[in-house]
Amino acid sequence: MNKLLILSSRAAEYRTMIEKAHLPNLTLEHSLTSNINILFGEPALIKGALASLPALGWAQSIWAGVEPLLGADNRRDYILTNARGVFGTSMTEYVFGHLLAHEIKIKRHAQAQLHKHWDNSYTGTLRGKTIALLGVGSIGAEVARAAKFFNMTVYGYTRESEACKYVDKYFHPSTTLESFSLLKENFAKDADYLVSVLPNTIETRKLINADLLSALPHHAIFINVGRGSAVDESALINALEQNKLAAAVLDVFEQEPLPTTHPFWTTKNLHMTYHTSAPSLPEDIINVFIENYLLFNEGKPLKHQVDFERGY
Amino acid sequence: MNKLLILSSRAAEYRTMIEKAHLPNLTLEHSLTSNINILFGEPALIKGALASLPALGWAQSIWAGVEPLLGADNRRDYILTNARGVFGTSMTEYVFGHLLAHEIKIKRHAQAQLHKHWDNSYTGTLRGKTIALLGVGSIGAEVARAAKFFNMTVYGYTRESEACKYVDKYFHPSTTLESFSLLKENFAKDADYLVSVLPNTIETRKLINADLLSALPHHAIFINVGRGSAVDESALINALEQNKLAAAVLDVFEQEPLPTTHPFWTTKNLHMTYHTSAPSLPEDIINVFIENYLLFNEGKPLKHQVDFERGY
Repeated sequence: MNKLLILSSRAAEYRTMIEKAHLPNLTLEHSLTSNINILFGEPALIKGALASLPALGWAQSIWAGVEPLLGADNRRDYILTNARGVFGTSMTEYVFGHLLAHEIKIKRHAQAQLHKHWDNSYTGTLRGKTIALLGVGSIGAEVARAAKFFNMTVYGYTRESEACKYVDKYFHPSTTLESFSLLKENFAKDADYLVSVLPNTIETRKLINADLLSALPHHAIFINVGRGSAVDESALINALEQNKLAAAVLDVFEQEPLPTTHPFWTTKNLHMTYHTSAPSLPEDIINVFIENYLLFNEGKPLKHQVDFERGY
Repeated sequence: MNKLLILSSRAAEYRTMIEKAHLPNLTLEHSLTSNINILFGEPALIKGALASLPALGWAQSIWAGVEPLLGADNRRDYILTNARGVFGTSMTEYVFGHLLAHEIKIKRHAQAQLHKHWDNSYTGTLRGKTIALLGVGSIGAEVARAAKFFNMTVYGYTRESEACKYVDKYFHPSTTLESFSLLKENFAKDADYLVSVLPNTIETRKLINADLLSALPHHAIFINVGRGSAVDESALINALEQNKLAAAVLDVFEQEPLPTTHPFWTTKNLHMTYHTSAPSLPEDIINVFIENYLLFNEGKPLKHQVDFERGY
C-alpha cells in the first residue's frame, strides 16, 4: 500500500480530488509518519519534510520550478517530478496578451479617451513580425505554435533540440566565447520580440545580458516568463532607461516577491506582473499527479522527472 | 483600353503599386474625364465622382463599408465591389488583444506596480470560455478560428449561412417576434464574450438592444468591430452603468468621429478605440484591386460584389 502526504496551501482541494479519483493501492496520510513514500505539493514544503521520510520514493511538485530541492546539500535518493505540459496555454495567453496590447495600442487609446481625442492613427500587427524564443520546451513550443497562428517568424534558442516544428530557425550555444557572442547577435538582431521561457540552471544564468540586449532592435519588446536568474537585471535597466529597447514585461525576478526597494518597480517602460503568468490550477495539476501515480503504482518510469544535476 | 481613376487620400501609394503591377490594357487617368470606366478608392470620394462618369462600369472600394454609395437616390448602374478578406487578421488581433488584456488583468497589474504591490492573485483564461459572434462572414470566420485556437466554444449568429466549421452552434433570425426574443436569449445567456462584426443593414439595425444585453451574464464583455448602427447606444450605456455587463470595447459608432458631447466617452467600463481595429493597408487592398481588375479585363464576374439592396 502506497502512503501519500499532500503538502500544499491548497491541500484540501487536492485531497478532495484525489479521493474522488479512487486511485488503487493508495492511502492518504494526514501527518508526517515515517512510512510515507509519496509527497505531492509545493517544493519548499517538500524540502521541509525530506529529513523525516526514510521511505520516500517519489515527490511530485505542483510547480514547474523546483529550485528549493536542487541544492547539492539536498537529499537526492528519491524520484522528483515537476508539473509540466499544463502551463503552456496560460503562458501563451500571457505572452500574446501583452504583445497584442502593445501592437493595438490599448494604453494609448485609453489615454486618448480620457482626453476625448479621436486618435485614429495607425495601429500595429503581429503579422510578419519575428519572435525569438529562449527555450523551446513544452511551454516554448506552445508559444511558437501561437506565433505561427499569428503569421510570425519564429527563432528558437535551445541547447540542442530541434523538435518543435513551429520554429523556423534554430540557434544553439557555441563552444567558444567569440562564436557564442556572434550567435547571440544573429539570434537577436531580427527579433521584434524576445521571449524567455528558460529555467534556472547554471547555463542560463544571466544569459540575457548587455550583449544580447544591445543586439536587439530598439523597437523590440522583451518578455520573461521563465526565471528571473536568466536576466542581468542591471543590464536590462540600462537598456530600458537608454531606450535601447521599447519595453520589457517581466513576470519573474531574481528575488520574489520583488523587494519594494528594487529599481524595477519604477524603471521606464518596464511592465511587471507577479509570477502570475501561469497559475498552477489544481484542476490541471491533479491530472499530472494521477497520471504519474498510476505509473508509479505499476513500477513504470514516471513522466516529467527532474534531473538534479541539470536542474530541470 | 480601360481607364482608371484613383480617388483616395493615399492615391500616390496606390498609383505606384498599380504602375509596378503592369496590368494589361489599363491607362491610369489623373483627373475626372468622361471616358473613365473604373474607379478605385474611398466610398465618399467615389460618390462625389459618380455624376461625372457616364462610362463607369466598376468601382472598387478600399474599405469594407460602402454606406455613402447605398442610398436609394444613388446611381446603381455599375458594379460596386468592396474590400473583403483582408481585415480578418487585424480584427482578430484587436478582439483577442482586448479579451486577453482583460483576462490576464494588464490594467490591474499596472496599477499594482504604481503602488509597489506584489499582486499575485489569480488571473483568468480564455480556455473554456464561450464567444458569441454576431455575423460570421469572412471576418467572423477568422475570429471563430482564433477562438478555437484558444480552446473556446463558439456560437454564431448568421442570417442563414452555416459555412464556418469553427462555429459550434448556429443561431438564425426567427420570423416571429416571440421566437426571435427567445433566440436572442439562448444565444446570449452562455456568452462570456459577445462580439459583433455585423455590417450596417436594415436587419442589423439596433439588433444589440436592451433585450439582448440583459440576457448576457454580468461578467460578459461586449466588443463591436462591425458597425455602430447595430447597437442601441442608450441601452448599452444603461447596461454598463448598472453593471449588467463587465465591459464594452467599441471601435465603431453611429456617428464617427464620435462627438465630444457623446456620453460614451465617459461611460463606466466602456473602452473606446477610433475605427482603428482594421486599418485598410495599401499593401493588402492593392491585391484585392489587382485580382478584380484581371477578372474585369477578361469580362469575368468580380469578387466581393456589393448587393445595393442588401447593403453588403
